[in-house]
Amino acid sequence: MEEIKKYVAEHKERFLEELFELLRFPSVSADPKFKDDVLKTADFVAKKLVEAGADKVEVCPTAGYPIVYGEKIVDAALPTVLIYGHYDVQPADPLELWHTPPFEPTVRDGKIYARGACDDKGQFYMHVKAFELMMKTNTLSCNVKFMIEGEEEVGSANLGIFVKENAERLKADVVLISDTSMISMENPSIETGLRGLAYMEVEVTGPNRDLHSGVYGGAVANPATILCKMIASLHDENNHITIPEFYNNVVELSDGEKKALNSAPFDLEDYKKDLDIDAEWGEKGYSTLERTGTRPTLEVNGIWSGYIGEGAKTVLPSKANAKISMRLVPNQSSDEISEIFTKHFVKIAPAYVKVKVTAHHGGEPVVTPTDSIAYKAAEQAIEDSFGKKPIPTRGGGSIPIVALFEDVLGIKSVLFGFGLDSDALHSPNEKYDIYNYYKGIETLPLFHRYFAKLNQ
Amino acid sequence: MEEIKKYVAEHKERFLEELFELLRFPSVSADPKFKDDVLKTADFVAKKLVEAGADKVEVCPTAGYPIVYGEKIVDAALPTVLIYGHYDVQPADPLELWHTPPFEPTVRDGKIYARGACDDKGQFYMHVKAFELMMKTNTLSCNVKFMIEGEEEVGSANLGIFVKENAERLKADVVLISDTSMISMENPSIETGLRGLAYMEVEVTGPNRDLHSGVYGGAVANPATILCKMIASLHDENNHITIPEFYNNVVELSDGEKKALNSAPFDLEDYKKDLDIDAEWGEKGYSTLERTGTRPTLEVNGIWSGYIGEGAKTVLPSKANAKISMRLVPNQSSDEISEIFTKHFVKIAPAYVKVKVTAHHGGEPVVTPTDSIAYKAAEQAIEDSFGKKPIPTRGGGSIPIVALFEDVLGIKSVLFGFGLDSDALHSPNEKYDIYNYYKGIETLPLFHRYFAKLNQ
Repeated sequence: MEEIKKYVAEHKERFLEELFELLRFPSVSADPKFKDDVLKTADFVAKKLVEAGADKVEVCPTAGYPIVYGEKIVDAALPTVLIYGHYDVQPADPLELWHTPPFEPTVRDGKIYARGACDDKGQFYMHVKAFELMMKTNTLSCNVKFMIEGEEEVGSANLGIFVKENAERLKADVVLISDTSMISMENPSIETGLRGLAYMEVEVTGPNRDLHSGVYGGAVANPATILCKMIASLHDENNHITIPEFYNNVVELSDGEKKALNSAPFDLEDYKKDLDIDAEWGEKGYSTLERTGTRPTLEVNGIWSGYIGEGAKTVLPSKANAKISMRLVPNQSSDEISEIFTKHFVKIAPAYVKVKVTAHHGGEPVVTPTDSIAYKAAEQAIEDSFGKKPIPTRGGGSIPIVALFEDVLGIKSVLFGFGLDSDALHSPNEKYDIYNYYKGIETLPLFHRYFAKLNQ
Repeated sequence: MEEIKKYVAEHKERFLEELFELLRFPSVSADPKFKDDVLKTADFVAKKLVEAGADKVEVCPTAGYPIVYGEKIVDAALPTVLIYGHYDVQPADPLELWHTPPFEPTVRDGKIYARGACDDKGQFYMHVKAFELMMKTNTLSCNVKFMIEGEEEVGSANLGIFVKENAERLKADVVLISDTSMISMENPSIETGLRGLAYMEVEVTGPNRDLHSGVYGGAVANPATILCKMIASLHDENNHITIPEFYNNVVELSDGEKKALNSAPFDLEDYKKDLDIDAEWGEKGYSTLERTGTRPTLEVNGIWSGYIGEGAKTVLPSKANAKISMRLVPNQSSDEISEIFTKHFVKIAPAYVKVKVTAHHGGEPVVTPTDSIAYKAAEQAIEDSFGKKPIPTRGGGSIPIVALFEDVLGIKSVLFGFGLDSDALHSPNEKYDIYNYYKGIETLPLFHRYFAKLNQ
């Protein structure tokens, strides 16, 4: 432990500067206009893996953005850790809400503000630096493989094919992923469940052109009004989702599981204060932790129709659009839910509009084991580093790749995240605490050490 | 009549070219970035009034865009016609739906395609050319005053003050306005009623920042979903508006009035075919003509929230906004309805969101008389020019200025419009038929002739 702290202390400025370099690339995978930047980011990651001491580093082309691979095989007899991360980021808009430019990392009271600071550049880069540390101090106790992709924020569309085609090269005993959060630094935790995702886009068309709302208003269906009515009907008065068959495969938690889940430190008043809301919302009969961790949800991620510029325009729009995504829990299937949603949404459309539904990327829900060697190694590493045993929690987010790994490679994952819910992922002013960044770099080598030991 | 036709025939190319010049100015009053263009348009209109023979032409400054005034007083003993029009236009977006650039007038099978072609540049400019014709042929039979404003599309905010301050200068016996439509060239008509307008903008705020829909989804109210539910609740299952007191002052038409209104030629199948809709929509118990002409309405003119760019972003938005306008019928007051709407919208907002409601411009509903000398003069002019008596109709649109004239100057208006419902006002590919443009220039001098004669 001392040796680790010593190395981090000696190189901390450089560790930070390298992360800043990485954060300056606007690697937004959702928006084609950033294509070159995303590609440059992949090259940068590859360069850094080489510098850290990885062999066979390769920027592997896919039908979309490349996947960066690198490895260090110390001894075939040792267990192998496959590290997954992603170098792409969410779009930064609305830009006007950022206090400092999203792609010019800025430090304010110990926090790094930048798009991707936590999700996932700051977190996966901890592994690169921890790997460097183990190489330089000759303490690498497991074989290591890196797979850093560039399409996580748009659904990892090409990762599945890559994994299937490279099953041999990717063989490992565990997948280690830092792309999740802890409750707090005082209450370290490990996420043991993730929700799946079905992401739909809908278009409601009324008249074949925008109309004058005075000449036609009141006599022709307004697609914006109709879309509102359709969306409004998707939740009942108990905020229960009304789509038939939606809950068919959802398993209720046992009283024991509920008790364990709700034992995690959580203060609803602080939660409301942090978000500046007077009342929480959600499915009747469930606690906030149950709602985000164990229940499927349906959210409007975006809606637009008609005139949204300055001033007033008296138009009756021709079209209304919305992006609607559903978070899924174990036993729900992304494709199945997409299909159920589409069928229902088309069915509830009244005769005076036409509806088009298209599916964006999806992802399957997963639950990771807490009785595995890998989990115990992570638990032990955190206890050494934080002086406290981590609490197993259920996360609301989705990392489709976790399910993919289980299916294709038959390897379980450990969600070794060092972020915080307050990091504003996907929001303006995303941040990552410098403390957490260094803490991660210090903790990860311990995982490798215990994972090797427990595997003997 | 022959003399009129002869003059128009001799100058038709120039009449068209001058209109094209006028249409090339992007005089969008709603968007500040067009400020210079709007101001240039006012100067152009003034120049053309001088060329046509008007005296005392002046570009009168206001707190907003200027009002162009000009006059020709032949003889104080003659009746005076005050011509109102507006040189500003609606925003042209969505631009991608225009077949040719909105501010580069293009002729396709006898139609002029451009923003403002019909509303109102093409229509008010007919009066300028008709005035030129009467001047050059020494047939001006009434005194004429022009008042062409630049803020009609944003609510004529400063016109009221101007009219009050210039009541003396604006004294007249009738206000003549060409900013409305006819049923068709085969079925000429004159609008005798206009709806008022109350235009609101609402903002629903949930959490104080955009959130990750996975981490927070299902536990925090989504303002987009809430706004949809609120908007959905504004119409009941009969498409009746649910705002308390909304219909308080609405007067039902007598059976006679209904009969007259519905006797206007109208084919619902053609209407649906033109708009490419399978079913019409509207308040139960009323015909399409009644719905647009005599009933108040509530329309969503715009709605936006969250991520509306390409691809997928799993965000739970902080805010959701909408522009909602209501068309009003006689006895409803714009301010009163704005107040009733605001009270109701705030009242139906659930505890977990904050709501802000602001009012844009409004306008009062009016009914113009059909037994006045002015109406009879217009009727006679159309009968001479079209060979058919015009049908009195009720229009769905709003020209707030009409009510203003009655209140402040005590003058009634005649809505002498030559547009067609198919002119796509406020929509992409707005057009005005060249035939209608010339027909208007030929018909207007007849109005002046009859108005002078009937006033003797």
